[in-house]
Amino acid sequence: RVNSDRLWDSIMEMAKIGPGIAGGNNRQTLTDSDKQGRELFKSWCDEAGLTMGVDQMGTMFMTRAGTDPDALPVYVGSHLDTQPTGGKYDGVLGVLSGLEVVRSLNDLGIKTKHPIVVTNWTNEEGARFAPAMLASGVFAGVHSQDYAYARKDLDGATFGEELKRIGWVGDEKVGARKMHAYFEYHIEQGPILEAENKQIGVVTHCQGLWWLEFTLTGREAHTGSTPMNMRVNAGLAMARILEMVQTVAMENQPGAVGGVGQVKFSPNSRNVLPGTVIFTVDIRSPDQAKLDGMRARIEKEAPKICEPLGVKCSVEAVGHFDPVTFDPTLVGRVRTAAEKLGYSHMNLISGAGHDACWAAKVAPATMVMCPCVGGLSHNEAEDISKEWAAAGADVLFHAVVETAGI
Amino acid sequence: RVNSDRLWDSIMEMAKIGPGIAGGNNRQTLTDSDKQGRELFKSWCDEAGLTMGVDQMGTMFMTRAGTDPDALPVYVGSHLDTQPTGGKYDGVLGVLSGLEVVRSLNDLGIKTKHPIVVTNWTNEEGARFAPAMLASGVFAGVHSQDYAYARKDLDGATFGEELKRIGWVGDEKVGARKMHAYFEYHIEQGPILEAENKQIGVVTHCQGLWWLEFTLTGREAHTGSTPMNMRVNAGLAMARILEMVQTVAMENQPGAVGGVGQVKFSPNSRNVLPGTVIFTVDIRSPDQAKLDGMRARIEKEAPKICEPLGVKCSVEAVGHFDPVTFDPTLVGRVRTAAEKLGYSHMNLISGAGHDACWAAKVAPATMVMCPCVGGLSHNEAEDISKEWAAAGADVLFHAVVETAGI
Ligand SMILES: NC(=O)NCCC(=O)O
Ligand SMILES: NC(=O)NCCC(=O)O
Repeated sequence: RVNSDRLWDSIMEMAKIGPGIAGGNNRQTLTDSDKQGRELFKSWCDEAGLTMGVDQMGTMFMTRAGTDPDALPVYVGSHLDTQPTGGKYDGVLGVLSGLEVVRSLNDLGIKTKHPIVVTNWTNEEGARFAPAMLASGVFAGVHSQDYAYARKDLDGATFGEELKRIGWVGDEKVGARKMHAYFEYHIEQGPILEAENKQIGVVTHCQGLWWLEFTLTGREAHTGSTPMNMRVNAGLAMARILEMVQTVAMENQPGAVGGVGQVKFSPNSRNVLPGTVIFTVDIRSPDQAKLDGMRARIEKEAPKICEPLGVKCSVEAVGHFDPVTFDPTLVGRVRTAAEKLGYSHMNLISGAGHDACWAAKVAPATMVMCPCVGGLSHNEAEDISKEWAAAGADVLFHAVVETAGI
Repeated sequence: RVNSDRLWDSIMEMAKIGPGIAGGNNRQTLTDSDKQGRELFKSWCDEAGLTMGVDQMGTMFMTRAGTDPDALPVYVGSHLDTQPTGGKYDGVLGVLSGLEVVRSLNDLGIKTKHPIVVTNWTNEEGARFAPAMLASGVFAGVHSQDYAYARKDLDGATFGEELKRIGWVGDEKVGARKMHAYFEYHIEQGPILEAENKQIGVVTHCQGLWWLEFTLTGREAHTGSTPMNMRVNAGLAMARILEMVQTVAMENQPGAVGGVGQVKFSPNSRNVLPGTVIFTVDIRSPDQAKLDGMRARIEKEAPKICEPLGVKCSVEAVGHFDPVTFDPTLVGRVRTAAEKLGYSHMNLISGAGHDACWAAKVAPATMVMCPCVGGLSHNEAEDISKEWAAAGADVLFHAVVETAGI
């Protein structure tokens, strides 16, 4: 078993960087805090004897050598970036458990046949730069690097500029590495494991996603002197689209979600009807037909909502991945590890997207999950116990070592 | 008649300060641009021989002396601040037409019995600091100065700090001045004069307003991994309240409006259901019972919308004025002036709030209006013709001189 105290202490140490306002973290990608987080992680990897490679997307690959010079590495990773009001565990647990696997191997003096590479992917969250899982997406050939570099945050700064600013543009060509296997350990971010009282989620699938960014164009006008029948009210159209998205999601139960996290009114003044309202609809389902059906319906109904209001409606997909099926052999190894260690477990479909979803395009991949309190994530109050953290890290350790070979 | 070329040139000169992004202006109150606008206006007043007084709210009172040492001044004013994406005429037309009245009197060598004071009220728009008409509200005793100084913009800067920063805290006690009469000339900001093909609006009333700031508290949670039935979705509650406000306004036709110009999601990340949504409902009617009835209904229905969603709902009135009836004698003088000058005219109820509404609490007050293209205002495309501007300025000139006495 891994050293659960050391794992927990490292998580708490990392949580000191980019503190939030309510006990969590604001360590958004490519900020000064992200830079600090990377430096701390690197210092730990140095101590553990790992060698660093960084690619042109800023993703950190920390290698523990294997004994077979011809064997491709086993990758274990996740992300150190957070939401603006994120938790201490989302992503961090996975990266630092990867480090803990290596530290435990060092303690035990075990050498593996395949190298092990602990990975910190850049911009998993997609909070600052949409889409999420950006660096792993480029790695898997889903996005071009130019596309990624041109992504903008709300202040107009680009990914490329900001990566350069924090000094983490590496020299490796993105996606040049070949993987023997990819493992990612993550908190569930949902309520199922806790409700079912299971320690380990054996992740067989991940649901797919569309992020549909709507730009509604109304007419800026005075809220007082503009009669109701002369309004071209983009705010009202937005409200109706939100309700419609809710309806579409509810009519696709079970196994679908839909909601809106980001809304921007312009000029956002109390006595001006908005000229523009931009917002992003987030819809997901593990069922490809359902997912694409929801998208089609939303894109069909939104213009019908806007038209009678005179509002112009345009939509752009700013994030997407299809539902993913993880590699059965690796999934089996996670299940076997949980059983061998005596941890209760169940199969899970990941509700959130993960770098593992893109890694699965280029290598056998899977995930391990542990419960989180109340299923709460993307919230500073996100919480797990040290025991939960350790159980998943143990399972990760065994599945990784099994795959890397001794 | 006034010098319409000089008036128009001054308006165009002022419009160079704080240019917008689409031909209008962004000269929000207490910004560096506001400071520049004040300096330009002061330089013109200096040339016209006016003496300046500034009160502790930063309102500028530019006096042309009268012949009777005991006579109270006639005030003519409006505001030089704009919306973030405002027009060139909203407010500016009134202040610079006040200046044009004085310049024309100078040209003609006419001395009036009562002094004439051209006034630039601070923060009429309320875009940066709610409520609107803040300085005139303090002047009329409706708000305390402490309340005004503590108003915050979206970045957390206070009115008091910003007034000091731009160097326009005057030494006059606010409201110490007594007025013989108050006149304000403004673009209509609505569609009626243009539709009815009239040159002059004789403003008899102003509709009342409530700004209701809602704070909805949901639970920040992951948009992907949080099942629909576990969401505490403050964004959905906001959408339903917007629709309800629309219904309430429509059910109070004719003679009422309702809408939302400002919405703020927190943390405003695409994959986080908002923990907090703050937005301001703007409702207006010239009918006091209707206005208060709409408010009561919205405040009763909003919690009923939120409750089944588990969303906490609180509401604060951040702006309010009752419907105003302007002084019949002054209204009569405006009408007479229009007739004498041969301008077509009609009675109007102001749809927007104006400093005249607060001035009316402490002095006889009224307004003159000119049409604006398509009734459009609070939009950079706001437009009027030079002839429209001049006609209202002529009417203002005659009504003011009639009131100030020769
Ligand atoms: N795990 C996680 O929260 N990833 C962010 C991408 C998503 O929204 O699913
Ligand atoms: N005239 C004007 O636009 N005033 C701002 C206050 C309001 O919203 O009515």
